[in-house]
Amino acid sequence: MGETMGFDAVEIITIKRDRGELSTPQIDWVIDAYTRGTVADEQMSALAMAILLNGMNRREIADWTQAMIRSGERMDWSHLDRPTADKHSTGGVGDKITLPLAPLVAACGAYVPQLSGRGLGHTGGTLDKLESIPGWRAELSNEEMLAVIRASGAVVCAAGTGLAPADKKLYALRDVTGTVESIPLIASSIMSKKIAEGTGSLVLDVKVGSGAFMKNVENARELATTMVALGTDAGVRTVALLTAMDRPLGRKIGNTLEVEESLEVLAGGGPADVVELTLRLAHEMLAAAGISGKDPERALKDGSAMDAWRRMITAQGGDPDGLLPQAAESMTLTAPASGVLSRLDALGVGVAAWRLGAGRARKEDPVSFGAGITLHAKPGDIVREGQPLITLHADETARFERALQSLENAYEVSAASDPGLLPLVIDRIEG
Amino acid sequence: MGETMGFDAVEIITIKRDRGELSTPQIDWVIDAYTRGTVADEQMSALAMAILLNGMNRREIADWTQAMIRSGERMDWSHLDRPTADKHSTGGVGDKITLPLAPLVAACGAYVPQLSGRGLGHTGGTLDKLESIPGWRAELSNEEMLAVIRASGAVVCAAGTGLAPADKKLYALRDVTGTVESIPLIASSIMSKKIAEGTGSLVLDVKVGSGAFMKNVENARELATTMVALGTDAGVRTVALLTAMDRPLGRKIGNTLEVEESLEVLAGGGPADVVELTLRLAHEMLAAAGISGKDPERALKDGSAMDAWRRMITAQGGDPDGLLPQAAESMTLTAPASGVLSRLDALGVGVAAWRLGAGRARKEDPVSFGAGITLHAKPGDIVREGQPLITLHADETARFERALQSLENAYEVSAASDPGLLPLVIDRIEG
Repeated sequence: MGETMGFDAVEIITIKRDRGELSTPQIDWVIDAYTRGTVADEQMSALAMAILLNGMNRREIADWTQAMIRSGERMDWSHLDRPTADKHSTGGVGDKITLPLAPLVAACGAYVPQLSGRGLGHTGGTLDKLESIPGWRAELSNEEMLAVIRASGAVVCAAGTGLAPADKKLYALRDVTGTVESIPLIASSIMSKKIAEGTGSLVLDVKVGSGAFMKNVENARELATTMVALGTDAGVRTVALLTAMDRPLGRKIGNTLEVEESLEVLAGGGPADVVELTLRLAHEMLAAAGISGKDPERALKDGSAMDAWRRMITAQGGDPDGLLPQAAESMTLTAPASGVLSRLDALGVGVAAWRLGAGRARKEDPVSFGAGITLHAKPGDIVREGQPLITLHADETARFERALQSLENAYEVSAASDPGLLPLVIDRIEG
Repeated sequence: MGETMGFDAVEIITIKRDRGELSTPQIDWVIDAYTRGTVADEQMSALAMAILLNGMNRREIADWTQAMIRSGERMDWSHLDRPTADKHSTGGVGDKITLPLAPLVAACGAYVPQLSGRGLGHTGGTLDKLESIPGWRAELSNEEMLAVIRASGAVVCAAGTGLAPADKKLYALRDVTGTVESIPLIASSIMSKKIAEGTGSLVLDVKVGSGAFMKNVENARELATTMVALGTDAGVRTVALLTAMDRPLGRKIGNTLEVEESLEVLAGGGPADVVELTLRLAHEMLAAAGISGKDPERALKDGSAMDAWRRMITAQGGDPDGLLPQAAESMTLTAPASGVLSRLDALGVGVAAWRLGAGRARKEDPVSFGAGITLHAKPGDIVREGQPLITLHADETARFERALQSLENAYEVSAASDPGLLPLVIDRIEG
């Protein structure tokens, strides 16, 4: 295939296959040639597998990320009158934090231009959740994005096709070739989009545990450290938190359900863990954006965060008072004995919500807005035999059986009083 | 992509990526689905890279080979009145052994049905060499193949498209994805074709050294042992010789040139190493075919091997007395000093012959029949300053410069009397 600039795909694949280091021009060439179609999918997938198995060093990852950024347009918010801040989560079960966080940080004086994605598998997608709001639109032009951010301080929308097209093409390829689980490829994929998005500061929420992509703290720390270095080197003030995803976040998992819980938080209430993580991330974003003297907790209590939410939803065509779609059917599991809810596994709950219809198996699939799970107790809570523990919501009762299978070993009531959970915020990593 | 029979490509790729073992049904499914196009090229190349880096065990290699055989037709020579024997060489520089060997073994009472290939890179292809004979045809139907073997005892032709189509597709893919250099994939590729070809016995000539695919004895022995086990398990009496490819075989490298040297051997002369290896392989083939009491050396001296050659060439449309194409230009390198030719590197000579036009860079390229190299001395020979060492032949003088570059460090005349060569036959491996 392509042999311009003195490189060819087989040579580059062979270097990485044999544990060598790819040069900057080699990385530039292969990403550019892949975007243009000169390097074929079957060559890039072989290279991705070699990278997954043999790794890339920091310099290679930085070059790979920069090459993906250069494959498309790069947005610029530096002409705005406020600093920009964004947050990215690696994804988890019940992770609706973007919904209260973006308007909260906007209410505290930053602009939040957030490009988000849809869910695939057991982790939900921010855009799917917001689309349960009648009229709300995820697809905005760059001009519309600017208008929304000016009107409300925050915008959450789908990334346009012009941003890091190499990453889009590569991500779709990795998805069908077993090459997703590579820290260099995950880090460069996330950071190429975030850097191209043009945010001035970025807080990464790297989830750890059964319900997250990173199952253990060690891998999560490596991913976080890699991403923080990439952001910092690209001039984005970047910090990462490692946070718990061994159990679900909050008490509601699903699209409508997570919007409802976000509204509870914006109204000054909501589950303790969601509130704590929202505030912690808000502090980090404001600090990274150089904004001091603002109190996010107060912005939740005084209604200013809720006001920003309503402006943001309205500016994207949504009705903040519209009725949210509800599931037609529900069933409730009760505590099999009295004791402590000693385990509530994030993966089991996430897969159950997915099977109930809240998520999608293939990217073409629709999601059910009303489907999902309500948790009546959290790990560590004392429960009495027969009390409601978990309610399942779905559009059809036929969905319950397979969801119940994935919940079967996901929770446990026992005499143990310490459920042995990860701390909500495990670690903080900065450049 | 495909998800019949409970498997899908990503699952299978992931197992091998994570150093797992693929089951027999998984291997059957992936080879079948790849042949049918349900598993995409980019999925198979990722799997090939995972196999290259993480390996396959003997059972997996055997299953992989059987699945490739089942992807197409299987020939059967068991109805013939003589036992069948074939030889396969992993390829080297100046390796024209098939040309004298096939008619020689036929003259000694076996049928030799040999499916051969064309050259790519610095190793020549048997079909390219034979095509320098005016009128000779490589492409035969199964019926024509049978007619040639009945007429002459031996047939050397191109493999039809019906034989191991999975291997054809996979080999082309590996060629452009940096996944050629995998012993499990090389062994299964060679053996699937040889087993499907239906030979009753098989002698493998596994070359070792700079001019060969296997650069060291250890890797060559692993490849040989793997292939012998595959053949034996499939009911083919299989034996392998490890033979030297640190220096070229014989004194002539090229298409016409190697036909000429083969005719010298069939006429009872020829270089000692070519004669020795031809006789050694003939003995092995006859023993594997269960033929005793025949003397191949005598068949070279008494003209019966030459008779079989003439019948074979004639039966495939060739004129055994036809003029062979010659190169228009030549230049000769002389010994820079008096001493011993202490080094003559197979790879350097092979690349030079390729650059002179004897080989092709891409499989669509034509070859020059007349181009190549004549060696006036072999390693260990005493030479005098100014005596001819190497003659280059090409259709255009413009070819000489790059050929000379690859010869530059390929030979050395020094005071040393022991060139430290590998023995011609290094080892013998049987089931």
